[in-house]
Amino acid sequence: MSKQQTKPIARPAIEGGLSPDRLSLNTATVRPQWSLQQCVDGCLRHGFGGIAPWRDKVQEVGVANAARIIRESGLRVSGLCRGGWYTAQGALTLSVIDDNRRAIDEAVAIGADCLVMVVGGLAEGSKDIAGAREIVTEGLARTLDYARTVDMAVAIEPLHPMYAADRACVNTVKQALDICDQLGTGIGVAIDVYHVWWDPALLPQLKRAGKERILAFHLCDWLLPTRDLLTDRGMMGDGVIDLRGLRVAVEAEGFDGLNEVEIFSEQNWWRRDADDVMRVIADRGRSCC
Amino acid sequence: MSKQQTKPIARPAIEGGLSPDRLSLNTATVRPQWSLQQCVDGCLRHGFGGIAPWRDKVQEVGVANAARIIRESGLRVSGLCRGGWYTAQGALTLSVIDDNRRAIDEAVAIGADCLVMVVGGLAEGSKDIAGAREIVTEGLARTLDYARTVDMAVAIEPLHPMYAADRACVNTVKQALDICDQLGTGIGVAIDVYHVWWDPALLPQLKRAGKERILAFHLCDWLLPTRDLLTDRGMMGDGVIDLRGLRVAVEAEGFDGLNEVEIFSEQNWWRRDADDVMRVIADRGRSCC
Repeated sequence: MSKQQTKPIARPAIEGGLSPDRLSLNTATVRPQWSLQQCVDGCLRHGFGGIAPWRDKVQEVGVANAARIIRESGLRVSGLCRGGWYTAQGALTLSVIDDNRRAIDEAVAIGADCLVMVVGGLAEGSKDIAGAREIVTEGLARTLDYARTVDMAVAIEPLHPMYAADRACVNTVKQALDICDQLGTGIGVAIDVYHVWWDPALLPQLKRAGKERILAFHLCDWLLPTRDLLTDRGMMGDGVIDLRGLRVAVEAEGFDGLNEVEIFSEQNWWRRDADDVMRVIADRGRSCC
Repeated sequence: MSKQQTKPIARPAIEGGLSPDRLSLNTATVRPQWSLQQCVDGCLRHGFGGIAPWRDKVQEVGVANAARIIRESGLRVSGLCRGGWYTAQGALTLSVIDDNRRAIDEAVAIGADCLVMVVGGLAEGSKDIAGAREIVTEGLARTLDYARTVDMAVAIEPLHPMYAADRACVNTVKQALDICDQLGTGIGVAIDVYHVWWDPALLPQLKRAGKERILAFHLCDWLLPTRDLLTDRGMMGDGVIDLRGLRVAVEAEGFDGLNEVEIFSEQNWWRRDADDVMRVIADRGRSCC
């Protein structure tokens, strides 16, 4: 996408790992600990190359303030999380479409590489996942129509199949790319290792996606055991995912964005001092990614 | 498979639902409550058409006794759970191959329609899922070589991707069928709605499988929220899966085996009186399947 190509390419890895300037902090990783301003300051303090805010952190301070805070920091914005939820009201409503239009505007305001889409699961009380997928495709088409007018890339994030019912009915990279092919330019995928690492079709689908469609790359790890479906993600290196292998695979396609770290961890990382979390991320970026 | 075709075809559904004689009780559904003998007696008392024991229930009484108990009951055996776990020792060992050979023998002894395979996840400490899949394919080939000599069908059960690390690295119907195509005759898939309902490729893959490859069909439901990755399966009708739609889809391919009910439920169904559980299953079979 053109927006990515106009930004500086991150430096090569140190001894094969990721130096902090190639990392981006997804604010969900320190959601309970830090405000947006604290996240920005923390990224600068620890030498991170970028940030990826969630909309709640942006809206806490207002979009204009958020945009100023981030612009003044000089941090790259690897994405805004998140648009989507097209099935939230059972059908594609104007309010859902409008909310996604606002999300695009917010992504533009903060200079994000892309708007990450968590598309929504089954509508309340529904068992019709094929129908949900139709709603989602139509909703993405509507958002994309607007996003093209402001040059903002739309990144479908395929979510792990365990979220098919309640968060996102797009569950594989192949499925997301099929939607992209249907909708045309300006749309691609956000590859989060947590959601896709298991997929036997992953590597050929990353090749299919290529540089044009790989808009974001998210890191964390899959823990054994996983004690909660949503909030028990692991720090890189603490789980079973071949992180370096997957990073090499997206880079082989030409992906040159930041490596965004997004860890939901109710029982562990959300309870720690956030500067400690940042230090561990930086360390694991070097040693495990 | 020839074994299935020699057994009586279940009667048509009553008003679209499943009468109890079209159901099979997977013994895991009442694992803490009932022994094999109690399961058999319960199936007869509630008019179930069949049973699908786990190997622990068989081994508790010994294979010969189990075979006698089941044979005398007249119940059909929709499957024996389970063989597989090829990655349990890091590489494909003789002891793993031998254990699967014993599982085939046990399946023959109790007259099962198939041996259901939970193939195993990552080896201890490994992050190499591609390697695990190679071990699994080789293991299945070895088991199949023996199974063909005793006319026992081998049913690969693709498990939900959330079990890719610790239980089974075969996670989609397509992946399982690719293995079947590689290995030839005598092997197919066990379709458990819990594991496959989310898959956007499910319906075309069921069509690809056809009668020849669909060896078993398992029922339960996906709860919202799901509170545990392993032991929070729902009773049919309590979740979001379009059960009737999936049953119709496998029947459209010619599947005429029993509908096996397999519910792991630490907090709910495992704590209830087992006869109550059987009554609810029979009721939900009629109304929700």
